[in-house]
Amino acid sequence: MALPMLQLALDNKTLADALASTRVLAAEVDVLEAGTILCCSEGMQAVRCLKSLYPDRIVLADIKAADAGTILANMVYDNGADWMTVICCAPIATVETALAAARKCNQAADPAKTLTPLDVQVELTGTWSWEEAEAWRAAGISQVVYHRGRDAQAAGQSWGQEDLDKIRRLAGMGFALSITGGLVVEDLPLFAGIPIKVFIAGRSIRDAADPAAAARAFKAKIAELWS
Amino acid sequence: MALPMLQLALDNKTLADALASTRVLAAEVDVLEAGTILCCSEGMQAVRCLKSLYPDRIVLADIKAADAGTILANMVYDNGADWMTVICCAPIATVETALAAARKCNQAADPAKTLTPLDVQVELTGTWSWEEAEAWRAAGISQVVYHRGRDAQAAGQSWGQEDLDKIRRLAGMGFALSITGGLVVEDLPLFAGIPIKVFIAGRSIRDAADPAAAARAFKAKIAELWS
Repeated sequence: MALPMLQLALDNKTLADALASTRVLAAEVDVLEAGTILCCSEGMQAVRCLKSLYPDRIVLADIKAADAGTILANMVYDNGADWMTVICCAPIATVETALAAARKCNQAADPAKTLTPLDVQVELTGTWSWEEAEAWRAAGISQVVYHRGRDAQAAGQSWGQEDLDKIRRLAGMGFALSITGGLVVEDLPLFAGIPIKVFIAGRSIRDAADPAAAARAFKAKIAELWS
Repeated sequence: MALPMLQLALDNKTLADALASTRVLAAEVDVLEAGTILCCSEGMQAVRCLKSLYPDRIVLADIKAADAGTILANMVYDNGADWMTVICCAPIATVETALAAARKCNQAADPAKTLTPLDVQVELTGTWSWEEAEAWRAAGISQVVYHRGRDAQAAGQSWGQEDLDKIRRLAGMGFALSITGGLVVEDLPLFAGIPIKVFIAGRSIRDAADPAAAARAFKAKIAELWS
């Protein structure tokens, strides 16, 4: 089973604040996520600066596209993103057009200079159905983000058996999974044995007394559980 | 029945391009929408500049929030937005926290200087259910955006009886409705007799040979049908 990657969620309100985190953390993680809050605040400048500073890191634009798949996909890829998100309730046409834009960019790219193929992830925040999941798979989606929402967490919802059952079922359908939502290193054993592609952590790393050590603790626990 | 307002959707890729439209159109419309594409590209700068230039127009930040309701609501209101959108599949906690942030800002505001109370609209792009609609109403949501998606349009979906039935049922539940999705002036009679709050038009006005005349044609047809 491949070792899950570690993604740093930059849900900062300003680019300067995000860069204060990446300065000490970019070397410790595999994926840098321009979070929804950061994209909303700073726009594509955030994505552009992350790729300029860290060309050897996967940059994810968590824009949660709900429409205008072609335009938004081309926008984030033109600005240096490797991956982007589409929200789970988006029309299937949005999923399809975003994915088509990614594939078109990939065909035009020089494989020798490609860090990772551009790709689209469906973000499972809020309500979605298994029928929709089948439709994403049929459309060619290979990555989904399983999200325990920030507001749901604040409302007291924790990781539970239902989450784990859904995550296993999604993995069984062939989806590579990113796991997110207030994740702390102590949560990782819950997912042992499941082929997770990416664990996403934000505040539990960024706000730690020693952020780099917190990131290394995640990587060490991942290596221990998935090696 | 109150006269529906006209909202200009600024789904431009750059702020400069959006301002080229508002220069000739701001005086002709009631609401200026910083569209999802524009917010994604330029971030809150787009919202800030629109409110700076047009303080007597309602500014809507179409960010389609799916999580982090408090942070995103405070962000858009701090930057001058009057209204914001939450995506229909967002957890109810996101709807509630965004609305609570709006109300808190309203309580702190000077009514004499208030153009319109800050508010949250639920954006009906993609899949949603009547149970969710009941939950939004129960949470205090009074505005929804009925959206025929851009990608759905491109895939050939037109305004149909099903749209109109849903719009009437939402109005019957007490929601004020904004109607959007490739709307052209010829579509307006379809909605006659329904208490629509806002019609949203973008490219059909912005890309017209005479944009101001196109906006006036919308206003004239609205006045003819709803007076």
